[in-house]
Amino acid sequence: MQSFLDVNAMRAWLDARATALTERDTVPLLAALGRVLAADVVATLDVPPHDNSAMDGYAVRVAELGQPLPVSQRIPAGTVPRALADGSVARIFTGAPLPPGADAVVMQEVCTVGDDGRVSVDAEVTLGQNIRRAGSDIAAGNVVAPAGKRLTPADLGLLASIGIAEVDVIRPLRVAVFFTGDELAEPGEPLADGKIYNSNRYWLTPLLLQLGCEVTDLGTVPDNFGATREALTDAADFADIILTCGGVSVGEEDHVKAAVEAVGTLDLWKIAIKPGKPFAFGRVGAADFIGLPGNPVSGYVTFHVFVRRYLEQRQGLAEVREPSVIRLKAAFEWTRADARREEYLRVKRVVENGETVLARFANQNSGVLSSCAWADGLVRLAPGQTVAPGDWVDYLPFE
Amino acid sequence: MQSFLDVNAMRAWLDARATALTERDTVPLLAALGRVLAADVVATLDVPPHDNSAMDGYAVRVAELGQPLPVSQRIPAGTVPRALADGSVARIFTGAPLPPGADAVVMQEVCTVGDDGRVSVDAEVTLGQNIRRAGSDIAAGNVVAPAGKRLTPADLGLLASIGIAEVDVIRPLRVAVFFTGDELAEPGEPLADGKIYNSNRYWLTPLLLQLGCEVTDLGTVPDNFGATREALTDAADFADIILTCGGVSVGEEDHVKAAVEAVGTLDLWKIAIKPGKPFAFGRVGAADFIGLPGNPVSGYVTFHVFVRRYLEQRQGLAEVREPSVIRLKAAFEWTRADARREEYLRVKRVVENGETVLARFANQNSGVLSSCAWADGLVRLAPGQTVAPGDWVDYLPFE
Repeated sequence: MQSFLDVNAMRAWLDARATALTERDTVPLLAALGRVLAADVVATLDVPPHDNSAMDGYAVRVAELGQPLPVSQRIPAGTVPRALADGSVARIFTGAPLPPGADAVVMQEVCTVGDDGRVSVDAEVTLGQNIRRAGSDIAAGNVVAPAGKRLTPADLGLLASIGIAEVDVIRPLRVAVFFTGDELAEPGEPLADGKIYNSNRYWLTPLLLQLGCEVTDLGTVPDNFGATREALTDAADFADIILTCGGVSVGEEDHVKAAVEAVGTLDLWKIAIKPGKPFAFGRVGAADFIGLPGNPVSGYVTFHVFVRRYLEQRQGLAEVREPSVIRLKAAFEWTRADARREEYLRVKRVVENGETVLARFANQNSGVLSSCAWADGLVRLAPGQTVAPGDWVDYLPFE
Repeated sequence: MQSFLDVNAMRAWLDARATALTERDTVPLLAALGRVLAADVVATLDVPPHDNSAMDGYAVRVAELGQPLPVSQRIPAGTVPRALADGSVARIFTGAPLPPGADAVVMQEVCTVGDDGRVSVDAEVTLGQNIRRAGSDIAAGNVVAPAGKRLTPADLGLLASIGIAEVDVIRPLRVAVFFTGDELAEPGEPLADGKIYNSNRYWLTPLLLQLGCEVTDLGTVPDNFGATREALTDAADFADIILTCGGVSVGEEDHVKAAVEAVGTLDLWKIAIKPGKPFAFGRVGAADFIGLPGNPVSGYVTFHVFVRRYLEQRQGLAEVREPSVIRLKAAFEWTRADARREEYLRVKRVVENGETVLARFANQNSGVLSSCAWADGLVRLAPGQTVAPGDWVDYLPFE
């Protein structure tokens, strides 16, 4: 079946099929970078655990100030203070627990220490000044990181601060990739007449790895029905998703379509998108099958417009990236609007007169990835939309 | 020495000391993701190597059209065609080389194949139509990827398309990290009275790994001069950069400062930045020493404002990230301007009425990383700058 779909309809169709994984791994904190949290993490303690000092200085009783006072104890961070003796101050350092009885901390810069060791305060002091209260950062019972969040360095730091040493994360999405086409040569091999180098393998696998997928590369499969069918059934044994580039248009040289239909189901579309157009989604056993266009630029753009979002939903991500469109000003002109298709231009942020604007790669028609390598994102144009310099446009960063 | 510096002056001071590594590794293409190219990569062949078809259809001689013509050959991608026989067309597929003598490709959708197998073209055909010319994407001799570029998935795809199987990249930057403070407990351990969990280790290492650094974690060093000194000299034996959090302010409990000064040199600053302030840069042997503030939020912000840029320059990156400030509208208010310091608010992009705007984390004073974990970037405010909803502000994305 060959259908025609606009971009939003295709996205909605995929959204309806994107079932999040639920199986979990328990991993040490530092191994959880980029993984997706399987459950809310709830704080079991207050941070800070005690009232403590926000400054290097002196812990005082405000009512006793106005006269030089002796230093009755010294409280470095990590120690346990005694109650503040009457008529005295305590030397205290940033992060150190406040001694019981103290009601403010005076920063050392406004204190004078006399020859007798007594401390005078040369500033007005208010109750509670420079005290960080127990539980003021995190109160026990707070959710500090929600289920479905991809863990960042800051998340790991935050979880460490409440003593979390390991976390439950969704298991990695297993993606099998393979490539077909007797015209494909591998980089490093001499290029026989009529052949081209396989470039799809070299952008697709890294993109999947960057998203935290577990990638199995089944290599280049000979361009025939039997070998393609075998690759598909092999992959369906272990993979959540089988991804390939090319072989799924209506051309009669395409064995992938026939092979997927023989061992599973397949829907094929022409999407109203440029570059792009052919897109296939099917099932082989329990695995999804996704067929990207064989043209590297079309495949790369299609991946960013549809596949990344789909993978993130399957990974269990609560917030997928689609909303992170940024409105920026174009520093370019685009007059060759496509009347019927959404168009995705390869663009890059540049600074002009102190303002961030978008530059466009000159040759938007190239069959190779020069435009994608140069760019840091895409501009999405509605069908028929032209652009004049200074126009606001929708920018979708690659990262 | 204790100096006071504004943010730009500090950045210029660091820029002047950021010597790029020059040692190289030769690595296979797929291992080069995120590495920095050591030299320009120049194409040694044309892409496409031959004139080829941009469509599935028929290769024709335009002057012969206007009558049904027989199909004299069939040219799948990856094969070598014969010259186009007089008075015929050739069945051709996307990416297949054009047969000598053909001067256009007609897409199959506008062709009719008669019962006799002859092909009629039901559309106007122009010379050169649907032909991708040899060298039109990349001409031999072109620089396809410049020295100093951090390699993305698209770069790897592009390099593959010209047959590159391995690349020369700058060797990884070696960073040693250690942490001091007898008050530090590790996550998973029970929290003794007066202790806090070490969170700095858990955001710093992942950030360094994300930047492609080779990280050696020397752990938590006992809070005394001898142990600190030993950690420093050990690290200087192998590391390009020694990084730590805390221990470099003027407080008398800070052994790190004394230890660095004993085995190397150290400059300390109070930077006019909020959060942040204390920052240290020195040398131990051939290694740089960088001391971040011990407060996790201050350290995290200082890392993004100064250290990331410095590391990227040392990695040999030609374009460091600083210019990637984006101007966005604030959806928040900020009235508590700091009169003397640049301030970095933790913010997040949100979509409001179809427009991307910035929301602010409510509690910008927290000592823990909640704000950084919630945020996806920083808003930079000049000293004294307040913000009303709808104001344009400088946004620095974390990624």
